[in-house]
Amino acid sequence: MTAGPDHKQASAERFIISVDAMSGDKGPATVVAGIAISAAKNPDVGFILHGDSAVLTPLLAKRAQLTNRVTIQDAQGVVTMDAKPSQVVRNAKDTSMWSTIESVKEGNASAAVSCGNTGALMALSMIRLRKLEGVNRPAIAVLWPSRAETGFNIMLDVGADVRADASDLLKYALMGTSYARNGLGLHRPRVGLLNVGTEENKGRTELKDAFGLIGDFAEQANYEFVGFVEGSDIPGDVADVIVTDGFTGNVAIKTGEGTASLIGDLLKQAFKYSIMSRLASLLALGTMKRLKTRIDPRHVNGGVFLGLNGTVVKSHGGADATGVSAAVQLAIQLAKSGFTEKLAARVATTLALAQSDDELSEKTAQLQDERQT
Amino acid sequence: MTAGPDHKQASAERFIISVDAMSGDKGPATVVAGIAISAAKNPDVGFILHGDSAVLTPLLAKRAQLTNRVTIQDAQGVVTMDAKPSQVVRNAKDTSMWSTIESVKEGNASAAVSCGNTGALMALSMIRLRKLEGVNRPAIAVLWPSRAETGFNIMLDVGADVRADASDLLKYALMGTSYARNGLGLHRPRVGLLNVGTEENKGRTELKDAFGLIGDFAEQANYEFVGFVEGSDIPGDVADVIVTDGFTGNVAIKTGEGTASLIGDLLKQAFKYSIMSRLASLLALGTMKRLKTRIDPRHVNGGVFLGLNGTVVKSHGGADATGVSAAVQLAIQLAKSGFTEKLAARVATTLALAQSDDELSEKTAQLQDERQT
Repeated sequence: MTAGPDHKQASAERFIISVDAMSGDKGPATVVAGIAISAAKNPDVGFILHGDSAVLTPLLAKRAQLTNRVTIQDAQGVVTMDAKPSQVVRNAKDTSMWSTIESVKEGNASAAVSCGNTGALMALSMIRLRKLEGVNRPAIAVLWPSRAETGFNIMLDVGADVRADASDLLKYALMGTSYARNGLGLHRPRVGLLNVGTEENKGRTELKDAFGLIGDFAEQANYEFVGFVEGSDIPGDVADVIVTDGFTGNVAIKTGEGTASLIGDLLKQAFKYSIMSRLASLLALGTMKRLKTRIDPRHVNGGVFLGLNGTVVKSHGGADATGVSAAVQLAIQLAKSGFTEKLAARVATTLALAQSDDELSEKTAQLQDERQT
Repeated sequence: MTAGPDHKQASAERFIISVDAMSGDKGPATVVAGIAISAAKNPDVGFILHGDSAVLTPLLAKRAQLTNRVTIQDAQGVVTMDAKPSQVVRNAKDTSMWSTIESVKEGNASAAVSCGNTGALMALSMIRLRKLEGVNRPAIAVLWPSRAETGFNIMLDVGADVRADASDLLKYALMGTSYARNGLGLHRPRVGLLNVGTEENKGRTELKDAFGLIGDFAEQANYEFVGFVEGSDIPGDVADVIVTDGFTGNVAIKTGEGTASLIGDLLKQAFKYSIMSRLASLLALGTMKRLKTRIDPRHVNGGVFLGLNGTVVKSHGGADATGVSAAVQLAIQLAKSGFTEKLAARVATTLALAQSDDELSEKTAQLQDERQT
């Protein structure tokens, strides 16, 4: 996309992405295949690949186009998909996941990508990269196919933390708009707060508080606050950024995925029903492919961890090469846009105006008083 | 279905359904059209129709098949869609919604159906019908298209209350399984507790507590507890009854609806793309119609209020005649199965074993201790 003038020159690589080769369900060959797709599209990007070098070296040797584009960082341990985050934190120093994050921490890479265990990846990211000043709870943000002009909305948190208070939700709004600017190219994103109705008096207390806070910061943080939105607006064209706690966000994203998958399967069944429908399905092949590309989760694969000193993209555990490549592409895009620095600056500037969490709490109390009078 | 021997005889009507004619978005003509569909299918059912008799009388006069099947109960007031439940409770005595519930309270009808404002309908139902002994928070349950053999799962609560503690969630499990028996014909329903992961150690405290309680009552209440389930299992074949709080359930159901609607629209667009795809769409008409019938929300229209002394079915506000008829059909099915009484008996029997809410709290504390040791 913003390819350098000389596609063959390895030294022209200006951005390095750190990739965990070992933690996904499908193994290192799939990750290498995904990197190969991304490497071909982005001649100005290099990769550090983390994992068992005895396994990775022959995999890379098979792909001439990756010569001089990938550095292997040997790491013998692997974080398993069912590992508990608390255990991983204590015993992960030799793992590919730890090593992948370490490259970002040391400044050797601009962003990290892993297909591993979400909880473990978040725990390691928090410990090694540390939380951004002013952020209490980091969040995971995803792109969600929608009716919006960009084709996507951003939702966060989708599972970093099952809790979020009003101040956390405000920071999700700030981080989400930063992502919308750098990931979707939106200048003044629309922010919606997920609730069970759009009336101001509905929902839980922390949501009413967050409603006040997010509204108050809209002007200075340059977003438009559209107020409460509902589940049906997640794939809608009402808000570009949908803010919610990690419990609700996680249930919503999985419900959406499950519904899409059920409809897809029913559609397949329906087309097998009669000779007429089988014929229709042949003629509709191209149509279905276009639709699938539009909503295929593999093409929008990658949850971004926000609120850390560094960009980490979590790819789906079962991602195939196309999925891995989509996650890597997202990491590249964010690295190129200087996302980590811009997000940090945005949060810092906005929160400097609020000065401290104490003042946010005070503001919240004040809003509560106003509601009661 | 279980039609009486003499289809023409009004006196053969053994079940009476109370229907609110005025509160929906589409007006009384649509409700009357919906009743006409249901009346034709259920010769043993009669109706009490609530609303302005000057409006309803001519609407009924146009439909000969409703002669002697419908009694009009005059009610001049209408609860508007944007009315606040707190206001409605104070000023609703002359409304069609109040009158509809009153017929169930007085024992003149077996179940009530309304297309009106959900919050107002729940508030009036709670005030007039009262909560079932042992139930602190009534719930709204919906049927959700799924991969299960019945074609549906039951999810509750989808919006009666934004909060639910462990004891409420246990009662949702009891009420949901009762609904699964009488609504889906399942002898020993599978119950799942909605969470962000399936591991026992995940999620919020009240969910871990509820996990213990629901597991403990599985044997005596004759359901199978499958443990924690995720959003993707809502349309799946893992649990027949999905238990969650009304906030999460409401977001999930609306996210699922929004996703289904987006996919439907993208499908339509895709079929308009080229001559080939237009031809395919012609051939696929029957296929699409079959699929639509399978997942059309109109055919599974109706949230059931559980935990009250009486059955109330909330139809979608914008329901057309097909939708109204589906909601009425659900009310008829539940009335015929003696659902209200069976559910009350089930909750009473199960809770008698726990004796009191105090004992449930004690049990919960005990489970918490066990977790910590």
